[in-house]
Amino acid sequence: LLTIPLGYRFSAMYAGIRKVEKDDLGLIVSDQPASAAAVFTRNLVQAAPVRIGRKHLRASRGKLRAILVNAGNANCATRTGDQVALATCEALAARLKVPMEQILPASTGVIGVELNPKRITKSIPALVKGLSADRFDDVAHAIMTTDTIPKTSSREISVDGRAVRIAGMTKGSGMIQPDMATTLGFVITDAELSPGDLRGLLAAAVETSYNRVSVDGDTSTNDTVAVLANGASGVKPKGLALDEFGAALTAVLEDLARQIARDGEGARKLVTIDVTGLPDDGGAQRIARGIANSPLVKTAIAGSDPNWGRILSAAGNAGVPFDPAKVDIYLQGKLVCQGGLAARFSEAQMKKRLDERECEVRFIVRGRGRGAARFWTCDFTEDYIRINASYRT
Amino acid sequence: LLTIPLGYRFSAMYAGIRKVEKDDLGLIVSDQPASAAAVFTRNLVQAAPVRIGRKHLRASRGKLRAILVNAGNANCATRTGDQVALATCEALAARLKVPMEQILPASTGVIGVELNPKRITKSIPALVKGLSADRFDDVAHAIMTTDTIPKTSSREISVDGRAVRIAGMTKGSGMIQPDMATTLGFVITDAELSPGDLRGLLAAAVETSYNRVSVDGDTSTNDTVAVLANGASGVKPKGLALDEFGAALTAVLEDLARQIARDGEGARKLVTIDVTGLPDDGGAQRIARGIANSPLVKTAIAGSDPNWGRILSAAGNAGVPFDPAKVDIYLQGKLVCQGGLAARFSEAQMKKRLDERECEVRFIVRGRGRGAARFWTCDFTEDYIRINASYRT
Repeated sequence: LLTIPLGYRFSAMYAGIRKVEKDDLGLIVSDQPASAAAVFTRNLVQAAPVRIGRKHLRASRGKLRAILVNAGNANCATRTGDQVALATCEALAARLKVPMEQILPASTGVIGVELNPKRITKSIPALVKGLSADRFDDVAHAIMTTDTIPKTSSREISVDGRAVRIAGMTKGSGMIQPDMATTLGFVITDAELSPGDLRGLLAAAVETSYNRVSVDGDTSTNDTVAVLANGASGVKPKGLALDEFGAALTAVLEDLARQIARDGEGARKLVTIDVTGLPDDGGAQRIARGIANSPLVKTAIAGSDPNWGRILSAAGNAGVPFDPAKVDIYLQGKLVCQGGLAARFSEAQMKKRLDERECEVRFIVRGRGRGAARFWTCDFTEDYIRINASYRT
Repeated sequence: LLTIPLGYRFSAMYAGIRKVEKDDLGLIVSDQPASAAAVFTRNLVQAAPVRIGRKHLRASRGKLRAILVNAGNANCATRTGDQVALATCEALAARLKVPMEQILPASTGVIGVELNPKRITKSIPALVKGLSADRFDDVAHAIMTTDTIPKTSSREISVDGRAVRIAGMTKGSGMIQPDMATTLGFVITDAELSPGDLRGLLAAAVETSYNRVSVDGDTSTNDTVAVLANGASGVKPKGLALDEFGAALTAVLEDLARQIARDGEGARKLVTIDVTGLPDDGGAQRIARGIANSPLVKTAIAGSDPNWGRILSAAGNAGVPFDPAKVDIYLQGKLVCQGGLAARFSEAQMKKRLDERECEVRFIVRGRGRGAARFWTCDFTEDYIRINASYRT
């Protein structure tokens, strides 16, 4: 069960943006101006809501009142993108009676198709009317595209006996690849924090969560992870409590990131890749990413095939020097490659172990290297192709 | 019909290396020591035949008499890899009565499974007995793994009224990705050339052929492209004739590379990607590669979906600066994206055009940039997954 932070309300509805009648418009409102931080896609092609969102965060000096999000259309690479994002923020600002720059717009869906702003502006009165403190899940549903399940996570920590709550929602599920937040993710907390503190905590948390998950190696034009802190708990974490808050925020983001990998397009399995023994973390990350992005590794896992040769080969392509003769590879905790060579294992038993819904790959370079990295991905199935060969039609 | 260079003989047979009874051992012999050059995988994990092949070329000062190749086992990441490669070369050298270092070994197939050298050494008498000038195609068949068709190409040029012949064979079909020769490719010619000249010509030819083709973004541990020049035509191209020879060699390699893309695992379509208008060729190549490797672009093409937004987004991830507002994208010669925005086109007609077996993607950055690159890939279908989820079983 989720713990929802105090001082927020949520709403969702169907605005006719996507063809299927399923909520496609979501709203998160903080009762008070909240400190805010966000990370955006590093793709050179950036959607209008990303550009406007960045501008609003700057103009409002890191204060937000609301996040307005739609699914079904990315509002990217269109003639009217900026106007649409601005018009919808404007309409919402007027309705909520808040400054327009305190609204963060976000969109996900198809690229290059004009988004009719009226579908959103017309819906805003009903959307605002529907605001309620217990509709967090409705927004998590509304932002889904090819996601098969909504993705949420929450934590509560205690600071001097007083509770502080963090809750997050996210959506995948193709186009998930680092670097950077590679999806939409919205996290709210009732802790009191400065925008500067929040920015630092978010950057650190994203590094070990959203930046370590890959579905297909593509990065979208709309990726946004935003966090709001409205202070409604009356608690301002400092010192050790701030560290504890940062750890809880990271835990929420990691949980969301894992859910993204698990629900990757067509995925049946969550794959966790641990790489250790490299001279530095950067090298370990590159190898982990190389393994996570290899279609040959991901299809082998889909087929429950303990094909460690593909893992070794993918690592060898990462551009990071290591001695293949010092590599041990474990699958599901079982040694399958020892010193770069086949270990003794039962193919039949290994196949059965790999039929599990969660797969662990451990890639170890023996020696004194302390560089390590963890990465999440999913297996690569025929359904990925099926979903993506017919996304628009 | 292929033109086969003079002074070569070929043989192939089933040595019991692969499970299916289908030729898995191939031999190319030059009647005289031939000048030779080769390019090998850049993967950090290199198969034994790659290591031994490199050594032999150095020891023989770029002279080869034979190429001995097997399919069904990569002879990579095994305890006995080097001994196996050496033992098979030794057995063949004894039989052919040539120095062992004039033999180039090559292997393709599964990684990490011990290769029994006896399967090959025992077969060598019969293999050598089977040598014939008209069995080029048999070797092209023997090196196939998941390839659905053998891949060969040839050219003939005339130097001062005398004919010089070039013929090549290659195999794909997953794990095809630059940089570098990313497969096995063997090219023979009866021109007379020094090993040094041959090295230069091969390096240039590989650059615009094997280095510009991608199936799944993976690079194998065994990739080798070798060229032999035995001088049996009695013609030694110089000056302009040498340029002409280089152009013919490049044409053969490009033809082979295109065939690899067309026959990529599960592929139904050959996709040619042309990128122009960047400040330099390197940037154009990175963008072309980014488009070619994007699973979302490749699945869209599989589904005949003119989803140019994915092309623009993949280009935006390539790490090369360009102005998205200056991008035009053509699919099958039709403008689908103009200045980064949707152009007017009929979805139905475009879908029909994309049903063709060959697809052309043109990505143009308007302006004065002269940097250009061409790349080949294939569409990404459910069959790719089916093939790779069960490769070993």
